[in-house]
Amino acid sequence: MFSGLSAFPLTPFAAGKPDEAAFLRLLRRLIDAKVDSLGVLGSTGSYAYLTRARRRRIAELAVEHAESIPVMICIGAVGTDEVLALAEDAQQAGAAALLLPPLGYQALNEDEVFTLFETVTRHASVPVCIYDNPGTTHFTFSDALLSRIAALSGVGSVKIPGVPAEQSAANDRLAQLRGTLPDSVSIGVSGDASAANGLIAGCDGWYSVCGGLFPRVAKAMTEAAAAGDHQSVRAQSDRLQPLWALFRQHGGSFRVISAAAGLLGLTERDCLPRPLQPLSDAHCQQIADVLAALDLS
Amino acid sequence: MFSGLSAFPLTPFAAGKPDEAAFLRLLRRLIDAKVDSLGVLGSTGSYAYLTRARRRRIAELAVEHAESIPVMICIGAVGTDEVLALAEDAQQAGAAALLLPPLGYQALNEDEVFTLFETVTRHASVPVCIYDNPGTTHFTFSDALLSRIAALSGVGSVKIPGVPAEQSAANDRLAQLRGTLPDSVSIGVSGDASAANGLIAGCDGWYSVCGGLFPRVAKAMTEAAAAGDHQSVRAQSDRLQPLWALFRQHGGSFRVISAAAGLLGLTERDCLPRPLQPLSDAHCQQIADVLAALDLS
Repeated sequence: MFSGLSAFPLTPFAAGKPDEAAFLRLLRRLIDAKVDSLGVLGSTGSYAYLTRARRRRIAELAVEHAESIPVMICIGAVGTDEVLALAEDAQQAGAAALLLPPLGYQALNEDEVFTLFETVTRHASVPVCIYDNPGTTHFTFSDALLSRIAALSGVGSVKIPGVPAEQSAANDRLAQLRGTLPDSVSIGVSGDASAANGLIAGCDGWYSVCGGLFPRVAKAMTEAAAAGDHQSVRAQSDRLQPLWALFRQHGGSFRVISAAAGLLGLTERDCLPRPLQPLSDAHCQQIADVLAALDLS
Repeated sequence: MFSGLSAFPLTPFAAGKPDEAAFLRLLRRLIDAKVDSLGVLGSTGSYAYLTRARRRRIAELAVEHAESIPVMICIGAVGTDEVLALAEDAQQAGAAALLLPPLGYQALNEDEVFTLFETVTRHASVPVCIYDNPGTTHFTFSDALLSRIAALSGVGSVKIPGVPAEQSAANDRLAQLRGTLPDSVSIGVSGDASAANGLIAGCDGWYSVCGGLFPRVAKAMTEAAAAGDHQSVRAQSDRLQPLWALFRQHGGSFRVISAAAGLLGLTERDCLPRPLQPLSDAHCQQIADVLAALDLS
């Protein structure tokens, strides 16, 4: 399940609670587009803003409606006990995989992160994907640590942050990483703006926020990559430059995709969990203009 | 309650759970030393590693045993709903004040942090202390934002991170901050190594990790400061330089004080919540040597 397009949907909010109807509308688009897997309750899925009970409910809804598409559930939490409880919940809900970020409060050292993954993989009966996202976790993996964790039985994939913007540097980065990981462990790129570079460099898949709202667009890119048509991958990503520019402008994809979901009428216009607040009307208009120009709907 | 020595005890763990007997042993020392207030479930109190139910239990224990000493409870959480629930729990437990860090996952902007404080102060019936700790929250307050929040009715204090190491720079920093805050809002220094500088520069109090384990030492410093005896404050802090050096070596006070509590037999030797792991035997020996040399017990 760790290759191709893994689509990461929002968990939209309304009136201070997860908006289940809107979540199911988002899921429906992903299922209809036949994405290869779902990444539910990731950073984009606002796991950090949800209680355990709400996370369990969203996990259950996702699996229940995913038809034959495998669902990966993020089990990030600061304390190991909580991580294990979330892993249990996710597995009971029917998760096909678990996504685990080393979410710290006191800064974690490498041994602590290794032991967290060792503990979780020992308890879990489905594969674990290493969630490397220093932007939100503030933990930076060394390649040596990734290699050590990836060698654990039970680790299936690494979700890496963006790769270098220059293609040959991206290729070098992927080759370097491949050299340190077991063949059984897939590498999936995130950071949508550099997905093309990652896919061309040989990533097995794309853990995609863009794909969580615009699955057909993202699936066409991953399919072109799987067919070895790098020119098409590049062209498709280049066409989306105005979207990537919005992501850069707003500190990542999350706020832009949340606004876009509202603009498309799939969620409330303000679908963010508090304390997050929606973008200004002017910024939303800018996003609406880009969606229209790129024919994203 | 926002002046003098506010002692921040650990919430020690044993066998994966809060070790209530050890917590009460730590509290006893603070009450016997007549600290001016208690700061419970702060970063040092591992709030981020505890479920809501465990946090409520620790808050209740603290208030129940604090005798006449006011207790401030940290209500940090990523989601605003959770913060409000924790505020309610803390108040029901009898908290005299609430300590609120802007704990983000998606990076917060200034309006979001302001609105979080506005929402909490509107709901709370006890004063709120602004928790400015970029080291763990990854949010950096501007003075303009501190000023805006401090002007909210219901804000009683600002817990600032360390002040500059050079005394005249520390004085300048305090004067600058004083100029932007209402007179009714106290300023308390944290970052134990710079507490002397902060107190000499005119901070109203010390939010102290060191004081959570060694209250007599920390109280003597704050009392000297209150008496205007800057020479004594400086001398007492200078004597503790080997302790401050250990804090620097281990990325802050938390791991050192946790090890020290174990070495003194007040908690289990390993009293940290997972995924955190205790320091090595060699590091613990180094800490034991410093405690002995400084006569800290």
